[in-house]
Amino acid sequence: MKQLIKNVHILTMDSDWIEYKDGYLLIEENRISQMGEMSDSLPSADKIIDGKQGILLPGMINTHTHTGMIPFRSLGDDVPDRLRRFLFPLEQVMTPELVRASAEYAMAEMLLSGVTAFCDMYYFEDEVAQAAEAMKVRALLGETIIDMATCDAENAAEALAYCESFIQKWQNHEMITPVIAPHAPNTNDQKTLEAIVALSRKYDAPITMHVSEMTYEMEEFAEQYNQTPVAFLEELGYFDQEFIMAHCIFMTEEDMQLTQKYRDNVRIAHCIGANTKSAKGVAPVRGMLEHQLTVGLGTDGPSSGNTLDLFTQMRMFANFHKTHLADRGAFPAREIVRLATVGGAKTLGLFDQVGSLEIGKKADIIIVETNSANMFPIFDPYSALVYSANASNISDVWVNGQQLVKEKQLVQADVQQIRETLYQQMDRFVVEAKRRAAEI
Amino acid sequence: MKQLIKNVHILTMDSDWIEYKDGYLLIEENRISQMGEMSDSLPSADKIIDGKQGILLPGMINTHTHTGMIPFRSLGDDVPDRLRRFLFPLEQVMTPELVRASAEYAMAEMLLSGVTAFCDMYYFEDEVAQAAEAMKVRALLGETIIDMATCDAENAAEALAYCESFIQKWQNHEMITPVIAPHAPNTNDQKTLEAIVALSRKYDAPITMHVSEMTYEMEEFAEQYNQTPVAFLEELGYFDQEFIMAHCIFMTEEDMQLTQKYRDNVRIAHCIGANTKSAKGVAPVRGMLEHQLTVGLGTDGPSSGNTLDLFTQMRMFANFHKTHLADRGAFPAREIVRLATVGGAKTLGLFDQVGSLEIGKKADIIIVETNSANMFPIFDPYSALVYSANASNISDVWVNGQQLVKEKQLVQADVQQIRETLYQQMDRFVVEAKRRAAEI
Repeated sequence: MKQLIKNVHILTMDSDWIEYKDGYLLIEENRISQMGEMSDSLPSADKIIDGKQGILLPGMINTHTHTGMIPFRSLGDDVPDRLRRFLFPLEQVMTPELVRASAEYAMAEMLLSGVTAFCDMYYFEDEVAQAAEAMKVRALLGETIIDMATCDAENAAEALAYCESFIQKWQNHEMITPVIAPHAPNTNDQKTLEAIVALSRKYDAPITMHVSEMTYEMEEFAEQYNQTPVAFLEELGYFDQEFIMAHCIFMTEEDMQLTQKYRDNVRIAHCIGANTKSAKGVAPVRGMLEHQLTVGLGTDGPSSGNTLDLFTQMRMFANFHKTHLADRGAFPAREIVRLATVGGAKTLGLFDQVGSLEIGKKADIIIVETNSANMFPIFDPYSALVYSANASNISDVWVNGQQLVKEKQLVQADVQQIRETLYQQMDRFVVEAKRRAAEI
Repeated sequence: MKQLIKNVHILTMDSDWIEYKDGYLLIEENRISQMGEMSDSLPSADKIIDGKQGILLPGMINTHTHTGMIPFRSLGDDVPDRLRRFLFPLEQVMTPELVRASAEYAMAEMLLSGVTAFCDMYYFEDEVAQAAEAMKVRALLGETIIDMATCDAENAAEALAYCESFIQKWQNHEMITPVIAPHAPNTNDQKTLEAIVALSRKYDAPITMHVSEMTYEMEEFAEQYNQTPVAFLEELGYFDQEFIMAHCIFMTEEDMQLTQKYRDNVRIAHCIGANTKSAKGVAPVRGMLEHQLTVGLGTDGPSSGNTLDLFTQMRMFANFHKTHLADRGAFPAREIVRLATVGGAKTLGLFDQVGSLEIGKKADIIIVETNSANMFPIFDPYSALVYSANASNISDVWVNGQQLVKEKQLVQADVQQIRETLYQQMDRFVVEAKRRAAEI
């Protein structure tokens, strides 16, 4: 099937920053087959979509989230040590059905806000994979391994076994890449961390992990090993694998130099919104890029960053990094849009398929409408995306050539119905959550 | 007329934090006459509005903006010294018609995002007042006085004369309060600054001004007077008048102690989004509040902050101040919602009329719908407003008892038509803007 999208301002995000200001784009089956200006002769198509002068760009890529955690949203947001006071205890009552419903909800929300691919880390990840398949999104999905009893494993060994079956089941899927998701360097013992590298080698499966996120994590490693978590993981062989490190707030200059040697394998998921909401700090992204490291943007889970869209992250990124560097000119808007698209695709190892609009690439495409009050005037479309737009400006979304959002509505699913299903699964969770909230 | 709004979660924002979780609110003429739970017997009404489990709260108050500056949006966002490279030169081509059209557009945009009152500073302020009257919003409107030739005055003396006529014309309006808006302490000479205080005394008119916003402003005052701008203005008598100081990024501890003595008169419009986008820094709001100063939130103009809604500001406020203080627990969500409502009303001197929902107060009210994907679940409505919501979640807005937004649409105006009118006025501006942008 051929779909022709016309009357759009196309930002290809390719390496030459090519734009088609009054452009068209042709999708053939699941790939981009043609782009140009409306003044050219237009190709024929089975279906024609009027983009109504919207901004068309590659789908945004969320490099770190926890789709199973929708039930936690708005719970104890301002409470110190929320991880150990709310998240860990409440995760004990998560069920496969609740994770599945939450994951579908999160994917619906991401699609509606222009996210076409993401990297997830949670429990019952097989349920998340089923949700991703149903919602037709592109995803790296990581089963969490942590050294404690969780909702889906009695201990890390059981989690490892779950993870191995999970990899076997999903490793040849067109849209889903199974990954291994050790929770953090300080929440697994060294034996488990070594077994994870071995598993990664055995299946050529990527790893994703929270790294250098917590002050107590940094202190523990300094005391125990006189090392940073980054140096420790490098020694264990993590950097020889495809490795997505989330957060890296406290990455040092030496860490960056070390990581630079492995920059084809090791990438960073930067979650500025969650990192600053929790008062942890601003990761040294300027330094990371100076060391030629690959950086993408992430929302973190709906309990940490609350929203799952990258508009919020792009805006936060601009304001925090400019202020941090005391330089208004630092990270101009188009560099930030690049992080949300190209950077995300490279971080997830998907850049040969998606992340920029180029002939032959998979058609993961979004349109940001420019009719809403906040979207006028537009002297610079990148500026408009970073500083003016919000998630509600997404009008149309294609993943792998298939239109999944049309005029701000899901095409193949009903978000109210997904919400109802999720709500029905939340009974026990809500009771426990309210009990804990009342104790604060 | 009696309007009954039912099925809403009411946040009164009164001093006892009273909420009606499944509540109703009655508006009689332009005032709030009754509130309670749906389980009470409901009052009769001429019109019944189903709030559909939305969150109902006082209209948000934008304490500092420039409604005439919509044409500048997305122009040179990342360019250093934008004020002197883009704003001052391009303001030379502003016309009364362009300011009028821009102001209507900005007011439409603010209404659609839940802002019911604001403080403006611009040129041709009589046009802004006419726009405000047409759009039926509540506003403090300030004619800018600056020591240079502008689009509406050859010099500061002419601007002062314009300002005096403006005050005379609008001083008894129900919804509009004329104010005097000297641009900044360093962009007017001492004689003009003294004449402004005299004018304020003569008409009992409030003053609003950019204060302690620029590093070069601070340096000039240190060199020339060995003083801060705050101390200088206090000596000139500004602190004896009703005085709204915008920004105050570089306010010192001594400034705060001095200001504290005048805290019934002097208030602060804090514009976190614009201040950090321009890499200027984070104003010491914790200190201001410890000195019992009144603080409200402001978006700054659409060229500085880009969006005119307070959701963006609340979210930025949370993340920046928590990170700045290295304390996740600092400024819990409800304190931030309080700044956007109560704080704003107090800053603009409107708290006897609006800013909280109390019997007898004017009905400036908004509903945030909770049906969109980002608004579920809600364990804490304040958290949902600060961390989850965006401007597009505003569904209904009343100002002075009149419903101006209904189901996300303007009731009495058409935003597309306002945009068309604005676009038609922008010809010459766009030519000049593109010429300047090309020079960068």
